Amino acid sequence: MNVRPRAVVVVTGSELVRGERTDLNGPFLAREALTLGLEPARIVVVGDDPAELEAALRENVDADALLVSGGLGPTHDDRTVEMIARAAGIGVHVDPALEAEIEGVSRAIAQRLNRPYTDFQPGVTKQATLPDGAEPVGLAGTAPAFVLRNGNGGVVVVLPGPPPELRRLWPNAVQSEPFRRVLVRARPPGRRVVRFYGASESAVAQALAAAGGDGNGVEATICARDFEIHVDFIVEPGAENRADELEAALVAPLERYLFARDERPVSEHVLALARSRGWTLATAESCTGGLVAVRLTDIPGASDVVLGGVVAYSNELKQSELGVPAEVLERHGAVSAETAEAMVHGARERLGADAAVAVTGIAGPGGGTPEKPVGLVYLHAEGPDGGRGQEFTIPGDRDAIRKRATAMGLHLLRRLLSQNRDDSV
Amino acid sequence: MNVRPRAVVVVTGSELVRGERTDLNGPFLAREALTLGLEPARIVVVGDDPAELEAALRENVDADALLVSGGLGPTHDDRTVEMIARAAGIGVHVDPALEAEIEGVSRAIAQRLNRPYTDFQPGVTKQATLPDGAEPVGLAGTAPAFVLRNGNGGVVVVLPGPPPELRRLWPNAVQSEPFRRVLVRARPPGRRVVRFYGASESAVAQALAAAGGDGNGVEATICARDFEIHVDFIVEPGAENRADELEAALVAPLERYLFARDERPVSEHVLALARSRGWTLATAESCTGGLVAVRLTDIPGASDVVLGGVVAYSNELKQSELGVPAEVLERHGAVSAETAEAMVHGARERLGADAAVAVTGIAGPGGGTPEKPVGLVYLHAEGPDGGRGQEFTIPGDRDAIRKRATAMGLHLLRRLLSQNRDDSV
Repeated sequence: MNVRPRAVVVVTGSELVRGERTDLNGPFLAREALTLGLEPARIVVVGDDPAELEAALRENVDADALLVSGGLGPTHDDRTVEMIARAAGIGVHVDPALEAEIEGVSRAIAQRLNRPYTDFQPGVTKQATLPDGAEPVGLAGTAPAFVLRNGNGGVVVVLPGPPPELRRLWPNAVQSEPFRRVLVRARPPGRRVVRFYGASESAVAQALAAAGGDGNGVEATICARDFEIHVDFIVEPGAENRADELEAALVAPLERYLFARDERPVSEHVLALARSRGWTLATAESCTGGLVAVRLTDIPGASDVVLGGVVAYSNELKQSELGVPAEVLERHGAVSAETAEAMVHGARERLGADAAVAVTGIAGPGGGTPEKPVGLVYLHAEGPDGGRGQEFTIPGDRDAIRKRATAMGLHLLRRLLSQNRDDSV
Repeated sequence: MNVRPRAVVVVTGSELVRGERTDLNGPFLAREALTLGLEPARIVVVGDDPAELEAALRENVDADALLVSGGLGPTHDDRTVEMIARAAGIGVHVDPALEAEIEGVSRAIAQRLNRPYTDFQPGVTKQATLPDGAEPVGLAGTAPAFVLRNGNGGVVVVLPGPPPELRRLWPNAVQSEPFRRVLVRARPPGRRVVRFYGASESAVAQALAAAGGDGNGVEATICARDFEIHVDFIVEPGAENRADELEAALVAPLERYLFARDERPVSEHVLALARSRGWTLATAESCTGGLVAVRLTDIPGASDVVLGGVVAYSNELKQSELGVPAEVLERHGAVSAETAEAMVHGARERLGADAAVAVTGIAGPGGGTPEKPVGLVYLHAEGPDGGRGQEFTIPGDRDAIRKRATAMGLHLLRRLLSQNRDDSV
């Protein structure tokens, strides 16, 4: 049975409820709530229509933890404070200490913009207005974050909408007295993950079922993410042994596909493997257009391992920059196992890298033929001790093909570097 | 006054309500609803807890359009049909024609997996079970999408959770008779966008206010997106003239920053400009690690313009692959205006391109010094008629610095190609 305190997230923003911008705050607050031992029950996105906002807050104001983002600005469209008060059936007041603090910030802004402070004064009073009983927990610019006890012994947390500001002020809210009262009842779960590459989602689901399935304090979620299969375990306090057993029984038949028990991206695993061998890396890309290099250099500190790469989109560059013989291109075509292998040779030699990976394929939507359809991709990874190639036809659109080919390239390189001689995808 | 039919989106998925995966269906359905002339009022994300799901559906079942995604699978955790029926106070039934169709799909799956069909039979019957009065509108694998009239004359649309399947079946739902009845009352708004690069969000907000602001049937939303400032106009039928006037008055003082009146990414503008000149393009990247090349080759048909690029992460590759003189690197450093210019020369010459762009900088978190802090970026774009350079210090973390430097590189190339000699950022 779920006896965790129930958390609800309400996110305000007209551009969010219209789908014009992706909400980042809801998922962030839900993840944080789960980590703290609350149960995220729903995320509600609403616009700034007063009736819609009030209804969304009223329906959820008695949650054990209501986490609200946005609508704290100085203009009349920013109605979160007023609507929280209405939903909770309480009044509002101007907080004098808060008003003085916001005035200080606003005077500095007025000076910088060379405008009279009187322009800002109404906004300052508006932003210093809080629901009765609220406790401010910090400013984002001129917008105050605050917490409030609800009638249910729960907490209402109100944070500014810009994601970096919300994340900065969130710890203050968590440490506030009203929030700590809720957390007394919270039960932070244990979490663990196992990640497979090359096994299908249904194969992992079957292995999980054969291992006895979840339940008894262990919840297992199977998720296809970044072309890997992740199994996330949420483990109730006391169910650790059951989780160990389930995890071991799940992994046993899938051992060859298991590659991580952490959340680090595959590119970070590749860099760590290369670093442990003292090897440098390079890339040679055609259809992925540089995505493999981007993924590797996304990781801080990549420069001690990654020398660079060549994006050889045209056949001319495949010859001039990677030394692919004209004869190979003529005989086998730019999208072929032979070209992929020649590209990886060229990258290692020309760029002076210990190991490299090459990708060539047809990302579409144009360029496909009956013999070489859109989605056909050849990969090759090579190190000082030899290499390994791969051919695959990837379903989906251009974006899906490029992303999946990139993931395949990174995993091929990972397998080369981990010297696991199993060639299965 | 808003008299559009009110649309509510309910998205189910435990991994979504926990923030472990970002919901794509809510924003998609909200955008589609808005385009059809409905008013997206809220997006609710819930998990598969029966009480939570039922409550979320019950609260919203009388919306003019309730759009639901997910929970249509064959297992007991997939409860959307049952909970919709409960929320609407109606029964469920097995649809014989649907059952035959799902059986056909399942038998093929059983054969492929070499398993007896009897394993699948309970799931087939479950998935062929619909709320009374529901009308199936297509299958995603074995999961049926369906529509249903609610007691209010509105429509309930239920679609499978995987985003590609949801998007594929959505048009069927829109064309169904119950949905068309709602659309009779819809008023599709006009939409337009103007995009600025180099102007601040507050400068655009001030220009909008000075132009008279929105209202009277024109709603203007200012949004910082991809380091550009977008102003989205939603125009009520009949308010087109007012929108023309507001747009013209907004653009007048910002003309030099205006670069688009469409939604095409800047990379697509760059390719179109290059194509119209008959020029080929190449890239030379250090800190962005290939992101500029990726953005350019994201666009279908890029191969007729983009030859390729070099990711020269190490100083050795800047010399060997781009011909940056050792003396330039020694005297000015890898992160300098001189190196950026030498990189762009090298890219044009070595790769044989008409125009190129180079980016070098310090993405961090390591590698900064007091003279050259993290975020310092030099860019250079060059064509047959000359070039232009740029220096900027970008705030934020590694990811923000790389993305913004990429956007700056693309806009620098765009300005070079459009021969606008204004060098302001």
